[in-house]
Amino acid sequence: MAGLEDPGWEAAAGEEFLREALQVLLEEAVRKGTDVTEKVCEWREPLELRELLDLELRSGGEPPERLLQRCRDVVRFSVKTGHPRFFNQLFSGLDPHALAGRLLTEALNTSQYTFEVAPVFVLMEGVVLAKLRELVGWSSGDGIFAPGGSMCNMYAMNVARFQRFPECRSLGMMALPRLALFTSCDSHYSIQKGAAFLGIGTDNVRLVATDERGKMIPEELEKEIQKAKAEAAWGGSALLSSKHRHLLAGIERAHSVTWNPHKMLTVGLQCSAFLLRDTSGLLQRCHGSGATYLFQRDKFYDMSYDTGDKTPQCGRRVDCLKLWLLWKAIGTQGLAQRVERAFACTRYLAEEVKRRDGFELVMEPEFINLCFWFVPPSLRGRESCPDYWPSLGKVAPAIKERMMRKGSMMVGYQPHGTRVNFFRQIVTSPAVTRADLDFFLDEIERLGWDL
Amino acid sequence: MAGLEDPGWEAAAGEEFLREALQVLLEEAVRKGTDVTEKVCEWREPLELRELLDLELRSGGEPPERLLQRCRDVVRFSVKTGHPRFFNQLFSGLDPHALAGRLLTEALNTSQYTFEVAPVFVLMEGVVLAKLRELVGWSSGDGIFAPGGSMCNMYAMNVARFQRFPECRSLGMMALPRLALFTSCDSHYSIQKGAAFLGIGTDNVRLVATDERGKMIPEELEKEIQKAKAEAAWGGSALLSSKHRHLLAGIERAHSVTWNPHKMLTVGLQCSAFLLRDTSGLLQRCHGSGATYLFQRDKFYDMSYDTGDKTPQCGRRVDCLKLWLLWKAIGTQGLAQRVERAFACTRYLAEEVKRRDGFELVMEPEFINLCFWFVPPSLRGRESCPDYWPSLGKVAPAIKERMMRKGSMMVGYQPHGTRVNFFRQIVTSPAVTRADLDFFLDEIERLGWDL
Repeated sequence: MAGLEDPGWEAAAGEEFLREALQVLLEEAVRKGTDVTEKVCEWREPLELRELLDLELRSGGEPPERLLQRCRDVVRFSVKTGHPRFFNQLFSGLDPHALAGRLLTEALNTSQYTFEVAPVFVLMEGVVLAKLRELVGWSSGDGIFAPGGSMCNMYAMNVARFQRFPECRSLGMMALPRLALFTSCDSHYSIQKGAAFLGIGTDNVRLVATDERGKMIPEELEKEIQKAKAEAAWGGSALLSSKHRHLLAGIERAHSVTWNPHKMLTVGLQCSAFLLRDTSGLLQRCHGSGATYLFQRDKFYDMSYDTGDKTPQCGRRVDCLKLWLLWKAIGTQGLAQRVERAFACTRYLAEEVKRRDGFELVMEPEFINLCFWFVPPSLRGRESCPDYWPSLGKVAPAIKERMMRKGSMMVGYQPHGTRVNFFRQIVTSPAVTRADLDFFLDEIERLGWDL
Repeated sequence: MAGLEDPGWEAAAGEEFLREALQVLLEEAVRKGTDVTEKVCEWREPLELRELLDLELRSGGEPPERLLQRCRDVVRFSVKTGHPRFFNQLFSGLDPHALAGRLLTEALNTSQYTFEVAPVFVLMEGVVLAKLRELVGWSSGDGIFAPGGSMCNMYAMNVARFQRFPECRSLGMMALPRLALFTSCDSHYSIQKGAAFLGIGTDNVRLVATDERGKMIPEELEKEIQKAKAEAAWGGSALLSSKHRHLLAGIERAHSVTWNPHKMLTVGLQCSAFLLRDTSGLLQRCHGSGATYLFQRDKFYDMSYDTGDKTPQCGRRVDCLKLWLLWKAIGTQGLAQRVERAFACTRYLAEEVKRRDGFELVMEPEFINLCFWFVPPSLRGRESCPDYWPSLGKVAPAIKERMMRKGSMMVGYQPHGTRVNFFRQIVTSPAVTRADLDFFLDEIERLGWDL
C-alpha cells in the first residue's frame, strides 16, 4: 500500500521545531514571564486581540517560523501567572521543579487508569496520596487525583450518598428519601453545582449560618443536623507547617478531604487530591464499572494496581509527578517553609494596611487571604454619608481596570454578603519579596488616588 | 520582617535545573521514546519498581543531580506511548506541534474560567469549538472542553435532563418522574457511570440491542423510545476526512456531540470537546452558578467572555492550545491526511490478517478498530472441540504478558459478549510505517507460536 513506507511526518523537522519552541518557552514564558520589570499582562480588548492573533483554522498548514511567532504571540498576550505581581487568584508562581514534572508528564503522555500504561505514576500517586493522608492524620485510607477541587467535592458528595444509600447507584435518587445536604453558607460554590449535577437539587442544600469570620457556627449546625462533610480545598497545605496546622485542628475527624496542592504549593493547575479515610474499597464500589477492555480479570499482574476504576473519569491525566518532584527537591521542610513564608507575607501586608491611611481591613486575616478596601481621598471621613458604601463599591473595579490596562499587576476583588467590593490578596509564590508587597499597596494608592 | 527581602527560591539555579530537565525530556522522552529500536516498555514487577524508584517523600530536599537522575528513571520505566509500536489504547504518537502547545500551556499555567486570566485561551477555545461544530455540520451552537470523554458524556446527560426538567437543578431527581436513559448495549461504560453519578441510577439505563457490528438497531430503539442522545467520542475525528466522514452521516441531527481529539489526532491527553447545537445558553443555565469572586457583574469588559461558568468545574485546564497549534501547523488538510493514513494502516493490517495463517478477524473493520484472534498451531483445525474457545481465550493474555516482559510492543485485548479475548489494534500515530505493522503481526506469531 502506497504511502505507508515512510512515517506520516518528518521526525527531524518536528524535533527541530520542538527545540525552538522550548527556547520560546524558556525565554518568553519562564524568564520574561517571571521578571518583575516586565508587565503582568498586555491588555487588549477581546475584538482587537482576536484580530491580532489570527486564530482562524484553515485548510493548509504553516511554516515553522510562522508557528514560532504564533507561540511568541500566545505568550505575549497571555497573563503571566508566574509573575511576582500576579495576585489575582489562588494560584501563582512558577516553580522550576514542579514545571519540570509537568513538562515530563506531557512528554510521557499517558492515562492513569492501569498499571500497564502508567506503572511509575500508579505507584507514585499511591505514595503521594498516602503522604497527604498522613498529614491529615490518617494512617490508612484511600484517594484519587481528580480534575480540580470542585470535582473532588462532587466525588465526596457522591461517595457520602453511596455509603448511606448504596442502592442509589442502581436505582437512582427516585428510590431514596428526600436528602438534605448541610454546608456552611460561605462554602465554595462547587457544593451547589455538585448538588445540581448529582441530582440532589440545590434547594436541598441547607446553608448553615457562619460567624463573621465565615466559620460555621456549631450550634447552628446542631440545630439542623449531625454533620456536614465538605472541606474547603485550598487551605489543606497549611497542614505542612507545624506552626500553622492548628488552623485545621480536627480535620482528621472528617471522612474525606479535598486538597488542592495547585494553589498554595505552586505546583501548577491541575493538582487536586480527593482523600478518604475509608479502607473498605468504598471509592471503587461507588465509582467502578469494570470495563473489560481496560480492567481485564486475567491480567498477569495484580489488578489492584489498576486504580482507574476509582473515578467517574475514564482516561485521566497524570497529576502526581509535578508534586512528587517538587517534594523530592525541597522536602517536607521546604514545603513547610513556603507555607510559612506565605503566612509571613500576609502578616506583613496586614500590618501595612493597618498602618497606611485610606486602607481598611475587612477583617484580620487568619489564613493567607487578605481582604481590604482602599478608600480614595474623596471618600475619606464620609463613612456616615448614605452614598459612602455604594461609592466605595465602585473603587476596586475602577482600580482593577486601570491596573489591567497598565499591566503592572493583577489582584482580584469581590463583594461578599452586605460588604461591597473589596480586594482579596493571596500570596503563594516564593518569588514575592517585601519590595513586591510594598509596590502592591503603593500601586493601588497611585491608581485609585483620584477616584 | 526578616526573610522577605529575598525571594524564597534561587531563580537562577531553578532555571538551570529546568534547562537540564528539558534535555532529559528531549533526549530520553522524545528522541529515545519514539525510536523504534528502543523498547516500548521496561517491565518491572510493582514491588520491584517501587524499590527501584525510591518514591518515599522525606523531610529534606535533594540536589539537582539526584533529581535529574530521578527524571531519567521516571522516563525509563514509563511506557513510551509515543513509540511507533505502542498500539495499546486509543492514544499514541507524539506530535511535536501538539507537544509544543502542551508544554507552553504548562509554562503559562492559567485557569480557563475568565477572560482576564486567560484572554488568549478564551478566544482560542471559542474558535476551536466553532471549527469542530462546523465539521459536525452546525453553523452555530455552544460547547466547552472537559476533563475527558466520560465527563463530556455526563455533561450531555445532565444538559438533556435539565432541558426537559429544568426544575431538577433546584429540586433534585426526587421531584421528577422516573427517568429512563436509552443507549446502545455496546456504548461506552461512562454512560453507566454517569447514570450512577447523576443520581439517575444504572437500572434506569435501558440498553438497546445492536447488530453484529455494534450498531444500535433502530427498530429496537423505536420499540422503546424516540431517541438516544449519546455519541461515541473517539470516532469524531473521521469528520475531518471527506473520504470517511460518511461513517458519521446524520451526526448533525444530534443535539450534542462528544469529541476526543486526544485520540485519533494525537494531540495528547486530555483534549475532549463537548459540543452542543443549542444557542439559547442552555449550558450556562444548566451548570452556571455565578460565583461573585470570579464572575463579577461590574467588570470593565464583556462578561460573556468569561466561559468558566459553563462547566461543573471551577478551575479548568487549558486544553485548546495543543490542538490549535497542531491545526495551524498542518491545516485541516493535514489532519484529514492523518485520519486517512490511520484508515489505510487498518486496511493494510486487515488484509494481512486475512492472508496469514492462524490469524482470524473478529469482523471486517469499518473504522480504525481492528479486532482479531491469533490461533496458535496447537489449536488450528480444532474449532469444533469443546475446549477450543476457552483455550483461545487464554492466548491473547499470554502473548500480552510475553510482549510486556520483552518490551517489544504493546497492544490491548478484551473479551466482548460471548467472544473470548481478542486483540484490539488501533493505529493513530503517523509515526507508524508498514514495517511496524508487519513487525506487529510477526511478533504476535513469534510470541504465540508455542502456546
